[in-house]
Amino acid sequence: MHREATIEPRQEILRAAARLFQQQGYDATSMNDVAAALKLSKGGLYHHFQSKDEILFHIMSHAMDITEERVINVVRRTEGAEERLRTLIRLHIEVVLSEEDREITVMLHENHPLPPALRRKINGRKKDYVHFVENLVADVQRQRNSTSQVTPRAAAFALLGMINWIYQWYKPDGSLTGDALVRQYTDIFFRGAVG
Amino acid sequence: MHREATIEPRQEILRAAARLFQQQGYDATSMNDVAAALKLSKGGLYHHFQSKDEILFHIMSHAMDITEERVINVVRRTEGAEERLRTLIRLHIEVVLSEEDREITVMLHENHPLPPALRRKINGRKKDYVHFVENLVADVQRQRNSTSQVTPRAAAFALLGMINWIYQWYKPDGSLTGDALVRQYTDIFFRGAVG
Repeated sequence: MHREATIEPRQEILRAAARLFQQQGYDATSMNDVAAALKLSKGGLYHHFQSKDEILFHIMSHAMDITEERVINVVRRTEGAEERLRTLIRLHIEVVLSEEDREITVMLHENHPLPPALRRKINGRKKDYVHFVENLVADVQRQRNSTSQVTPRAAAFALLGMINWIYQWYKPDGSLTGDALVRQYTDIFFRGAVG
Repeated sequence: MHREATIEPRQEILRAAARLFQQQGYDATSMNDVAAALKLSKGGLYHHFQSKDEILFHIMSHAMDITEERVINVVRRTEGAEERLRTLIRLHIEVVLSEEDREITVMLHENHPLPPALRRKINGRKKDYVHFVENLVADVQRQRNSTSQVTPRAAAFALLGMINWIYQWYKPDGSLTGDALVRQYTDIFFRGAVG
């Protein structure tokens, strides 16, 4: 029973901090605000994270973990280049649309100043993901003997732009449902970039 | 001569402020910092802008003015639906790639807290632009008797995502040149969404 109560304090801190950063701005949020939102003592918070930078870094790392678990790992276990690309598009859109993870994953794309060493780690993981998508696009183009003039690299950036931009406009109660979005984006990308 | 020296102080303030907001964060930048960066007295700055919110609002408005002048107005003067859409893609990418305007236009997509009334004004202009793109896509689909299952709305969001995401990854000295980017994005979008 004790274990249940203490197993996820770090995740809860990251989630509460991410929410505050979005509501009132990163710079305007203090470690005290984060502690207060969680009814933690300052010491209780500092036991887990030494600084706001460290919290931001772990929010971004957690967002990359989510992408790795829910997108990359599933795609790796999928058979066939084309099905892998379709799966990636669907799962990445699902991560973006996930109400539960949104406050964490959206932080990946905000330009908050992070110390260079931490920034490099996050950027490295982002780049790995771009390469993963790029290779997948190349595989599908090869398999389809595609005559497309579109390079896998430009295609990967176009796809990630389409998907990550969803944060900017999507309303869960809007006329465009998640399913319709997956179908249409898959259609645009397959016809446009690997057809 | 006197006129030349005073004609653009507001624009210079906006530009310097945008630069500071990106370097050190919006919340961490004070009106004093902005005044100091421009070697202005605090009174001199407050003569033009009453608050940081007002500066941010005018940066965003200016970014929308740039889009209107350099993209929308040129597209409106262009003949033929297809050529209009091609022109829009090229000119919007050029605005994003413009080193000179980047610090202003990138601010449009940052989620800084703006008072609701000002936020609504900016969002209204952003929505007008989405509708403009959406109508253009519908025109091209109609003209081509397109059998695409892609709705103009989803297509417009996909296109704006592809283009506005360029801020996140583009390096002027990278292997993907601006021209190649325009060509490939036009190709992806035309084949994918209106083909």
